[in-house]
Amino acid sequence: MSTGDVVVLDFWVSPFCLRVKMALAEKGVAYETQEEDLFGGKSELLVKSNPIYQKVPVLLHGGKAVCESTNILSYIDETWPSPPLLPPCTYGRAQARFWADFIDKKVFEEGNALWRTKGEEQEAAKKIFIETLKQLEGALGDNDYFGGATFGFVDIMLVSLTFWFCAYEKFGTFNLGDHCPKLSSWIKKCMERESVSTLLPDPEKVHEFVIMVRKMRGFE
Amino acid sequence: MSTGDVVVLDFWVSPFCLRVKMALAEKGVAYETQEEDLFGGKSELLVKSNPIYQKVPVLLHGGKAVCESTNILSYIDETWPSPPLLPPCTYGRAQARFWADFIDKKVFEEGNALWRTKGEEQEAAKKIFIETLKQLEGALGDNDYFGGATFGFVDIMLVSLTFWFCAYEKFGTFNLGDHCPKLSSWIKKCMERESVSTLLPDPEKVHEFVIMVRKMRGFE
Repeated sequence: MSTGDVVVLDFWVSPFCLRVKMALAEKGVAYETQEEDLFGGKSELLVKSNPIYQKVPVLLHGGKAVCESTNILSYIDETWPSPPLLPPCTYGRAQARFWADFIDKKVFEEGNALWRTKGEEQEAAKKIFIETLKQLEGALGDNDYFGGATFGFVDIMLVSLTFWFCAYEKFGTFNLGDHCPKLSSWIKKCMERESVSTLLPDPEKVHEFVIMVRKMRGFE
Repeated sequence: MSTGDVVVLDFWVSPFCLRVKMALAEKGVAYETQEEDLFGGKSELLVKSNPIYQKVPVLLHGGKAVCESTNILSYIDETWPSPPLLPPCTYGRAQARFWADFIDKKVFEEGNALWRTKGEEQEAAKKIFIETLKQLEGALGDNDYFGGATFGFVDIMLVSLTFWFCAYEKFGTFNLGDHCPKLSSWIKKCMERESVSTLLPDPEKVHEFVIMVRKMRGFE
Protein backbone atom coordinates (compact mmCIF):
# COMPACT_ATOMS: atom_id res chain seq x y z
CA MET A 1 0.00 0.00 0.00
CA SER A 2 1.42 3.42 -0.93
CA THR A 3 1.44 6.10 1.76
CA GLY A 4 -0.98 8.22 -0.29
CA ASP A 5 -3.61 5.53 0.18
CA VAL A 6 -4.17 6.64 3.80
CA VAL A 7 -4.63 10.35 4.45
CA VAL A 8 -5.70 12.10 7.65
CA LEU A 9 -7.35 15.52 7.35
CA ASP A 10 -5.66 16.97 10.40
CA PHE A 11 -5.33 19.91 12.80
CA TRP A 12 -2.22 19.90 14.96
CA VAL A 13 -3.87 20.70 18.32
CA SER A 14 -6.95 18.49 17.92
CA PRO A 15 -6.99 15.53 20.34
CA PHE A 16 -9.50 13.88 18.03
CA CYS A 17 -7.02 13.95 15.13
CA LEU A 18 -4.33 12.72 17.47
CA ARG A 19 -6.42 9.63 18.27
CA VAL A 20 -6.48 8.65 14.64
CA LYS A 21 -2.74 9.21 14.16
CA MET A 22 -1.95 7.21 17.32
CA ALA A 23 -4.11 4.30 16.19
CA LEU A 24 -2.43 4.25 12.76
CA ALA A 25 1.00 4.39 14.46
CA GLU A 26 0.07 1.51 16.78
CA LYS A 27 -0.94 -0.53 13.73
CA GLY A 28 2.21 0.41 11.83
CA VAL A 29 0.18 1.90 8.97
CA ALA A 30 1.95 4.59 6.94
CA TYR A 31 -0.14 7.70 6.32
CA GLU A 32 0.01 11.29 5.15
CA THR A 33 -1.59 14.23 6.89
CA GLN A 34 -3.20 17.24 5.30
CA GLU A 35 -3.28 20.16 7.76
CA GLU A 36 -6.54 22.10 7.74
CA ASP A 37 -6.61 25.86 8.30
CA LEU A 38 -9.66 25.87 10.58
CA PHE A 39 -9.44 29.59 11.29
CA GLY A 40 -8.70 30.64 7.70
CA GLY A 41 -11.15 28.41 5.85
CA LYS A 42 -11.88 24.72 5.50
CA SER A 43 -10.57 22.88 2.45
CA GLU A 44 -12.99 21.75 -0.25
CA LEU A 45 -11.82 18.22 0.43
CA LEU A 46 -12.89 18.47 4.09
CA VAL A 47 -16.32 19.86 3.22
CA LYS A 48 -16.83 17.19 0.56
CA SER A 49 -15.53 14.34 2.75
CA ASN A 50 -17.50 15.27 5.87
CA PRO A 51 -20.54 17.19 4.60
CA ILE A 52 -22.54 16.63 7.81
CA TYR A 53 -20.10 18.07 10.38
CA GLN A 54 -17.31 19.58 8.21
CA LYS A 55 -14.89 18.72 11.00
CA VAL A 56 -11.50 17.06 11.34
CA PRO A 57 -10.43 14.34 11.62
CA VAL A 58 -11.40 12.59 8.42
CA LEU A 59 -9.64 9.39 7.42
CA LEU A 60 -9.39 8.93 3.66
CA HIS A 61 -8.63 5.33 2.82
CA GLY A 62 -8.39 4.50 -0.86
CA GLY A 63 -10.37 7.69 -1.48
CA LYS A 64 -13.27 6.70 0.83
CA ALA A 65 -13.97 8.98 3.79
CA VAL A 66 -14.56 7.85 7.37
CA CYS A 67 -15.60 10.55 9.88
CA GLU A 68 -15.76 11.02 13.66
CA SER A 69 -12.69 9.94 15.61
CA THR A 70 -14.20 7.10 17.68
CA ASN A 71 -15.78 5.68 14.57
CA ILE A 72 -12.46 5.99 12.72
CA LEU A 73 -10.74 4.05 15.53
CA SER A 74 -13.20 1.18 15.11
CA TYR A 75 -12.64 1.27 11.34
CA ILE A 76 -8.86 1.19 11.78
CA ASP A 77 -9.11 -1.70 14.25
CA GLU A 78 -11.24 -3.74 11.83
CA THR A 79 -9.25 -2.85 8.71
CA TRP A 80 -5.78 -3.53 10.17
CA PRO A 81 -6.52 -6.14 12.87
CA SER A 82 -2.98 -6.50 14.26
CA PRO A 83 -2.25 -5.62 16.99
CA PRO A 84 -5.90 -5.46 18.12
CA LEU A 85 -7.07 -2.33 19.97
CA LEU A 86 -10.34 -3.80 21.26
CA PRO A 87 -10.29 -6.90 23.50
CA PRO A 88 -11.02 -10.29 21.91
CA CYS A 89 -14.18 -11.16 23.91
CA THR A 90 -17.58 -9.55 23.25
CA TYR A 91 -18.03 -8.52 26.89
CA GLY A 92 -14.56 -6.93 27.00
CA ARG A 93 -15.36 -5.01 23.83
CA ALA A 94 -18.66 -3.80 25.31
CA GLN A 95 -16.81 -2.57 28.39
CA ALA A 96 -14.21 -0.78 26.25
CA ARG A 97 -16.90 0.87 24.10
CA PHE A 98 -18.75 1.98 27.24
CA TRP A 99 -15.67 3.81 28.56
CA ALA A 100 -14.77 5.17 25.12
CA ASP A 101 -18.25 6.69 24.95
CA PHE A 102 -17.94 8.00 28.53
CA ILE A 103 -14.70 9.77 27.56
CA ASP A 104 -16.33 11.19 24.42
CA LYS A 105 -19.29 12.54 26.35
CA LYS A 106 -17.37 14.08 29.21
CA VAL A 107 -13.62 14.69 29.26
CA PHE A 108 -13.05 17.28 26.51
CA GLU A 109 -16.14 19.40 27.20
CA GLU A 110 -15.69 19.31 30.97
CA GLY A 111 -11.99 20.11 30.63
CA ASN A 112 -12.64 23.04 28.32
CA ALA A 113 -15.06 24.47 30.87
CA LEU A 114 -11.97 25.09 33.03
CA TRP A 115 -10.59 27.74 30.70
CA ARG A 116 -13.96 29.12 29.63
CA THR A 117 -15.04 30.06 33.17
CA LYS A 118 -13.89 32.05 36.18
CA GLY A 119 -14.52 32.23 39.94
CA GLU A 120 -17.28 30.06 41.41
CA GLU A 121 -18.27 28.71 38.01
CA GLN A 122 -14.70 27.57 37.46
CA GLU A 123 -14.61 25.92 40.89
CA ALA A 124 -17.77 23.97 40.03
CA ALA A 125 -16.27 22.99 36.64
CA LYS A 126 -13.12 21.78 38.39
CA LYS A 127 -15.15 19.58 40.77
CA ILE A 128 -17.04 17.99 37.87
CA PHE A 129 -13.85 17.41 35.86
CA ILE A 130 -11.98 15.81 38.75
CA GLU A 131 -14.99 13.61 39.56
CA THR A 132 -14.98 12.35 35.96
CA LEU A 133 -11.26 11.60 36.13
CA LYS A 134 -11.81 9.71 39.38
CA GLN A 135 -14.46 7.57 37.69
CA LEU A 136 -11.95 6.84 34.94
CA GLU A 137 -9.32 6.02 37.55
CA GLY A 138 -11.81 3.57 39.05
CA ALA A 139 -12.16 1.90 35.65
CA LEU A 140 -8.38 1.68 35.29
CA GLY A 141 -8.06 0.03 38.71
CA ASP A 142 -4.66 -1.52 39.27
CA ASN A 143 -4.11 -2.35 35.61
CA ASP A 144 -1.23 -1.00 33.59
CA TYR A 145 -3.61 0.16 30.88
CA PHE A 146 -7.37 0.45 30.34
CA GLY A 147 -6.85 -2.47 27.98
CA GLY A 148 -5.47 -4.53 30.94
CA ALA A 149 -1.87 -5.57 30.29
CA THR A 150 -1.83 -4.00 26.80
CA PHE A 151 -2.34 -0.49 25.47
CA GLY A 152 -5.66 -0.40 23.59
CA PHE A 153 -8.78 1.40 22.40
CA VAL A 154 -9.68 3.22 25.65
CA ASP A 155 -6.05 4.17 26.27
CA ILE A 156 -5.88 5.93 22.90
CA MET A 157 -9.26 7.60 23.50
CA LEU A 158 -8.07 9.15 26.76
CA VAL A 159 -4.33 9.69 26.31
CA SER A 160 -5.03 11.75 23.19
CA LEU A 161 -6.81 14.24 25.45
CA THR A 162 -4.17 14.43 28.16
CA PHE A 163 -1.83 16.90 26.41
CA TRP A 164 -4.58 19.48 27.11
CA PHE A 165 -4.44 18.59 30.83
CA CYS A 166 -1.43 20.86 31.32
CA ALA A 167 -3.61 23.82 30.23
CA TYR A 168 -6.52 22.60 32.36
CA GLU A 169 -4.26 22.36 35.43
CA LYS A 170 -2.90 25.86 34.84
CA PHE A 171 -6.28 27.52 34.35
CA GLY A 172 -8.03 25.39 36.98
CA THR A 173 -5.08 25.69 39.44
CA PHE A 174 -4.96 22.07 40.48
CA ASN A 175 -2.56 19.18 40.24
CA LEU A 176 -3.88 16.01 38.67
CA GLY A 177 -1.54 13.78 40.68
CA ASP A 178 -2.96 15.05 43.99
CA HIS A 179 -6.43 13.80 43.04
CA CYS A 180 -5.76 10.87 40.73
CA PRO A 181 -2.29 9.38 41.38
CA LYS A 182 -2.98 6.16 39.44
CA LEU A 183 -4.24 8.05 36.41
CA SER A 184 -1.20 10.26 36.64
CA SER A 185 1.09 7.20 36.59
CA TRP A 186 -0.89 5.79 33.68
CA ILE A 187 -0.23 8.99 31.67
CA LYS A 188 3.52 8.68 32.38
CA LYS A 189 3.51 5.03 31.29
CA CYS A 190 1.68 5.92 28.06
CA MET A 191 4.19 8.71 27.37
CA GLU A 192 6.91 6.03 27.17
CA ARG A 193 5.29 4.61 24.03
CA GLU A 194 6.66 5.83 20.74
CA SER A 195 3.16 6.10 19.21
CA VAL A 196 2.29 8.56 21.98
CA SER A 197 5.49 10.52 22.69
CA THR A 198 6.38 11.27 19.07
CA LEU A 199 2.88 12.47 18.19
CA LEU A 200 1.97 14.62 21.20
CA PRO A 201 2.13 18.38 20.54
CA ASP A 202 4.34 20.46 22.85
CA PRO A 203 2.21 21.25 25.98
CA GLU A 204 3.62 24.80 26.09
CA LYS A 205 2.43 25.44 22.52
CA VAL A 206 -0.97 24.06 23.51
CA HIS A 207 -1.06 26.45 26.47
CA GLU A 208 -0.25 29.37 24.14
CA PHE A 209 -2.97 28.17 21.76
CA VAL A 210 -5.52 28.12 24.60
CA ILE A 211 -4.53 31.67 25.60
CA MET A 212 -5.09 32.77 21.98
CA VAL A 213 -8.51 31.09 21.76
CA ARG A 214 -9.55 32.55 25.14
CA LYS A 215 -8.76 36.01 23.80
CA MET A 216 -10.51 35.36 20.47
CA ARG A 217 -13.66 34.19 22.23
CA GLY A 218 -13.64 37.02 24.75
CA PHE A 219 -12.89 34.90 27.83
CA GLU A 220 -10.03 37.21 28.81
CA MET B 1 -30.29 -20.91 27.20
CA SER B 2 -33.11 -20.21 29.65
CA THR B 3 -35.08 -16.98 29.29
CA GLY B 4 -33.79 -15.81 32.65
CA ASP B 5 -30.30 -15.69 31.20
CA VAL B 6 -31.15 -12.48 29.29
CA VAL B 7 -32.86 -9.69 31.23
CA VAL B 8 -33.54 -6.11 30.15
CA LEU B 9 -33.92 -3.48 32.86
CA ASP B 10 -36.69 -1.61 31.15
CA PHE B 11 -39.00 1.41 31.12
CA TRP B 12 -42.05 1.12 28.84
CA VAL B 13 -41.82 4.55 27.17
CA SER B 14 -38.02 4.65 26.72
CA PRO B 15 -36.93 4.52 23.06
CA PHE B 16 -33.51 3.40 24.29
CA CYS B 17 -34.97 0.33 25.98
CA LEU B 18 -37.06 -0.31 22.89
CA ARG B 19 -33.87 -0.50 20.79
CA VAL B 20 -32.56 -3.30 22.91
CA LYS B 21 -35.84 -5.25 22.83
CA MET B 22 -36.11 -4.82 19.04
CA ALA B 23 -32.57 -6.08 18.51
CA LEU B 24 -33.21 -9.14 20.70
CA ALA B 25 -36.48 -9.79 18.81
CA GLU B 26 -34.67 -9.50 15.44
CA LYS B 27 -32.15 -12.07 16.67
CA GLY B 28 -34.84 -14.37 18.03
CA VAL B 29 -33.34 -14.23 21.53
CA ALA B 30 -35.81 -14.90 24.36
CA TYR B 31 -35.58 -12.40 27.22
CA GLU B 32 -37.32 -11.14 30.31
CA THR B 33 -37.89 -7.53 31.20
CA GLN B 34 -37.81 -5.94 34.62
CA GLU B 35 -39.78 -2.68 34.61
CA GLU B 36 -38.10 0.14 36.53
CA ASP B 37 -40.14 2.68 38.49
CA LEU B 38 -38.10 5.71 37.40
CA PHE B 39 -40.37 8.20 39.17
CA GLY B 40 -40.78 6.16 42.35
CA GLY B 41 -37.20 5.01 42.87
CA LYS B 42 -34.59 3.03 40.98
CA SER B 43 -34.08 -0.62 41.83
CA GLU B 44 -30.94 -1.71 43.66
CA LEU B 45 -30.20 -3.94 40.68
CA LEU B 46 -30.20 -0.92 38.32
CA VAL B 47 -27.91 1.13 40.57
CA LYS B 48 -25.55 -1.82 40.97
CA SER B 49 -25.56 -2.76 37.29
CA ASN B 50 -25.08 0.76 35.93
CA PRO B 51 -23.31 2.67 38.72
CA ILE B 52 -22.03 5.42 36.38
CA TYR B 53 -25.34 6.57 34.85
CA GLN B 54 -27.97 4.62 36.85
CA LYS B 55 -30.11 4.60 33.71
CA VAL B 56 -32.12 2.09 31.71
CA PRO B 57 -31.63 0.14 29.58
CA VAL B 58 -29.25 -2.37 31.08
CA LEU B 59 -28.81 -5.75 29.44
CA LEU B 60 -28.01 -8.50 31.90
CA HIS B 61 -26.56 -11.52 30.11
CA GLY B 62 -25.59 -14.43 32.30
CA GLY B 63 -25.49 -11.95 35.18
CA LYS B 64 -23.06 -9.56 33.44
CA ALA B 65 -24.28 -6.02 32.81
CA VAL B 66 -23.95 -4.10 29.54
CA CYS B 67 -25.03 -0.43 29.57
CA GLU B 68 -25.93 2.30 27.07
CA SER B 69 -28.31 1.30 24.28
CA THR B 70 -26.02 1.75 21.27
CA ASN B 71 -23.31 -0.20 23.03
CA ILE B 72 -25.83 -2.91 23.92
CA LEU B 73 -26.83 -3.17 20.25
CA SER B 74 -23.19 -3.79 19.27
CA TYR B 75 -22.92 -6.40 22.03
CA ILE B 76 -26.10 -8.16 20.85
CA ASP B 77 -24.89 -8.14 17.24
CA GLU B 78 -21.57 -9.71 18.22
CA THR B 79 -23.01 -12.21 20.70
CA TRP B 80 -25.82 -13.50 18.46
CA PRO B 81 -24.43 -12.91 14.96
CA SER B 82 -27.44 -14.12 12.94
CA PRO B 83 -29.07 -12.24 11.29
CA PRO B 84 -26.39 -9.53 11.32
CA LEU B 85 -27.44 -5.97 12.13
CA LEU B 86 -24.24 -4.29 10.93
CA PRO B 87 -23.12 -4.69 7.28
CA PRO B 88 -20.41 -7.27 6.50
CA CYS B 89 -17.77 -4.86 5.11
CA THR B 90 -15.67 -2.57 7.31
CA TYR B 91 -16.59 0.55 5.33
CA GLY B 92 -20.31 -0.26 5.53
CA ARG B 93 -19.97 -0.75 9.29
CA ALA B 94 -18.20 2.61 9.63
CA GLN B 95 -21.02 4.29 7.70
CA ALA B 96 -23.65 2.60 9.88
CA ARG B 97 -21.85 3.60 13.10
CA PHE B 98 -21.56 7.19 11.84
CA TRP B 99 -25.33 7.45 11.35
CA ALA B 100 -26.08 5.61 14.60
CA ASP B 101 -23.96 8.20 16.40
CA PHE B 102 -25.64 11.06 14.46
CA ILE B 103 -29.04 9.76 15.63
CA ASP B 104 -27.78 9.47 19.21
CA LYS B 105 -26.44 13.02 19.25
CA LYS B 106 -29.44 14.68 17.66
CA VAL B 107 -32.87 13.10 17.23
CA PHE B 108 -34.12 12.57 20.79
CA GLU B 109 -32.85 15.84 22.24
CA GLU B 110 -33.95 17.92 19.28
CA GLY B 111 -37.35 16.22 19.25
CA ASN B 112 -37.87 16.79 22.96
CA ALA B 113 -37.16 20.51 22.45
CA LEU B 114 -40.50 20.57 20.57
CA TRP B 115 -42.53 19.89 23.70
CA ARG B 116 -40.27 21.78 26.07
CA THR B 117 -40.61 25.11 24.24
CA LYS B 118 -43.25 27.51 22.99
CA GLY B 119 -43.60 30.34 20.44
CA GLU B 120 -40.50 31.46 18.55
CA GLU B 121 -38.23 29.09 20.45
CA GLN B 122 -40.47 26.19 19.39
CA GLU B 123 -40.40 27.35 15.77
CA ALA B 124 -36.59 27.37 15.86
CA ALA B 125 -36.59 23.89 17.45
CA LYS B 126 -38.94 22.63 14.73
CA LYS B 127 -36.61 23.92 11.99
CA ILE B 128 -33.59 22.19 13.56
CA PHE B 129 -35.49 18.91 14.04
CA ILE B 130 -36.81 18.83 10.47
CA GLU B 131 -33.34 19.65 9.10
CA THR B 132 -31.92 16.67 11.02
CA LEU B 133 -34.63 14.38 9.66
CA LYS B 134 -33.88 15.62 6.13
CA GLN B 135 -30.22 14.73 6.60
CA LEU B 136 -31.32 11.26 7.67
CA GLU B 137 -33.62 11.05 4.66
CA GLY B 138 -30.59 11.89 2.51
CA ALA B 139 -28.71 8.98 4.09
CA LEU B 140 -31.66 6.65 3.44
CA GLY B 141 -31.77 7.69 -0.24
CA ASP B 142 -33.89 5.36 -2.33
CA ASN B 143 -33.13 2.31 -0.24
CA ASP B 144 -35.81 0.29 1.53
CA TYR B 145 -33.86 0.51 4.80
CA PHE B 146 -30.81 2.31 6.16
CA GLY B 147 -29.23 -1.14 5.99
CA GLY B 148 -29.90 -1.18 2.20
CA ALA B 149 -32.18 -4.06 1.26
CA THR B 150 -32.31 -5.37 4.84
CA PHE B 151 -33.44 -3.93 8.18
CA GLY B 152 -30.38 -3.32 10.35
CA PHE B 153 -28.50 -1.38 13.01
CA VAL B 154 -29.37 2.17 11.91
CA ASP B 155 -32.99 1.21 11.27
CA ILE B 156 -33.35 0.00 14.86
CA MET B 157 -31.56 3.12 16.17
CA LEU B 158 -34.05 5.43 14.46
CA VAL B 159 -37.31 3.49 14.35
CA SER B 160 -37.16 3.07 18.14
CA LEU B 161 -37.47 6.87 18.39
CA THR B 162 -40.33 7.30 15.91
CA PHE B 163 -43.16 6.41 18.28
CA TRP B 164 -42.43 9.76 19.95
CA PHE B 165 -42.82 11.52 16.58
CA CYS B 166 -46.61 11.55 16.99
CA ALA B 167 -46.15 13.69 20.14
CA TYR B 168 -43.54 15.87 18.40
CA GLU B 169 -45.92 16.47 15.46
CA LYS B 170 -48.77 17.39 17.82
CA PHE B 171 -46.75 19.81 19.95
CA GLY B 172 -44.75 21.16 17.00
CA THR B 173 -47.85 21.32 14.71
CA PHE B 174 -46.25 19.84 11.65
CA ASN B 175 -46.67 16.76 9.51
CA LEU B 176 -43.57 14.65 8.97
CA GLY B 177 -44.80 13.40 5.58
CA ASP B 178 -44.95 16.96 4.21
CA HIS B 179 -41.24 17.47 4.84
CA CYS B 180 -39.77 13.97 4.58
CA PRO B 181 -41.98 11.73 2.43
CA LYS B 182 -39.33 9.02 2.02
CA LEU B 183 -38.64 8.86 5.73
CA SER B 184 -42.38 8.67 6.33
CA SER B 185 -42.64 5.67 3.95
CA TRP B 186 -39.67 4.07 5.66
CA ILE B 187 -41.46 4.32 9.03
CA LYS B 188 -44.54 2.62 7.54
CA LYS B 189 -42.39 -0.15 6.07
CA CYS B 190 -40.68 -0.70 9.43
CA MET B 191 -44.07 -0.85 11.16
CA GLU B 192 -44.88 -3.93 9.08
CA ARG B 193 -42.13 -5.87 10.86
CA GLU B 194 -43.21 -7.97 13.82
CA SER B 195 -40.15 -6.93 15.85
CA VAL B 196 -41.29 -3.32 15.50
CA SER B 197 -45.11 -3.41 15.55
CA THR B 198 -45.50 -5.73 18.54
CA LEU B 199 -43.02 -3.77 20.68
CA LEU B 200 -44.04 -0.15 19.99
CA PRO B 201 -46.00 1.49 22.80
CA ASP B 202 -49.39 2.98 21.92
CA PRO B 203 -48.70 6.51 20.52
CA GLU B 204 -51.75 7.89 22.36
CA LYS B 205 -50.35 6.63 25.69
CA VAL B 206 -47.02 8.24 24.80
CA HIS B 207 -48.83 11.52 24.09
CA GLU B 208 -50.54 11.31 27.52
CA PHE B 209 -47.17 10.56 29.11
CA VAL B 210 -45.63 13.64 27.48
CA ILE B 211 -48.52 15.81 28.75
CA MET B 212 -47.90 14.45 32.27
CA VAL B 213 -44.13 15.14 32.09
CA ARG B 214 -44.73 18.64 30.69
CA LYS B 215 -46.93 19.35 33.72
CA MET B 216 -44.46 17.82 36.17
CA ARG B 217 -41.62 19.93 34.77
CA GLY B 218 -43.65 23.14 34.65
CA PHE B 219 -43.81 23.45 30.85
CA GLU B 220 -47.64 23.88 30.93
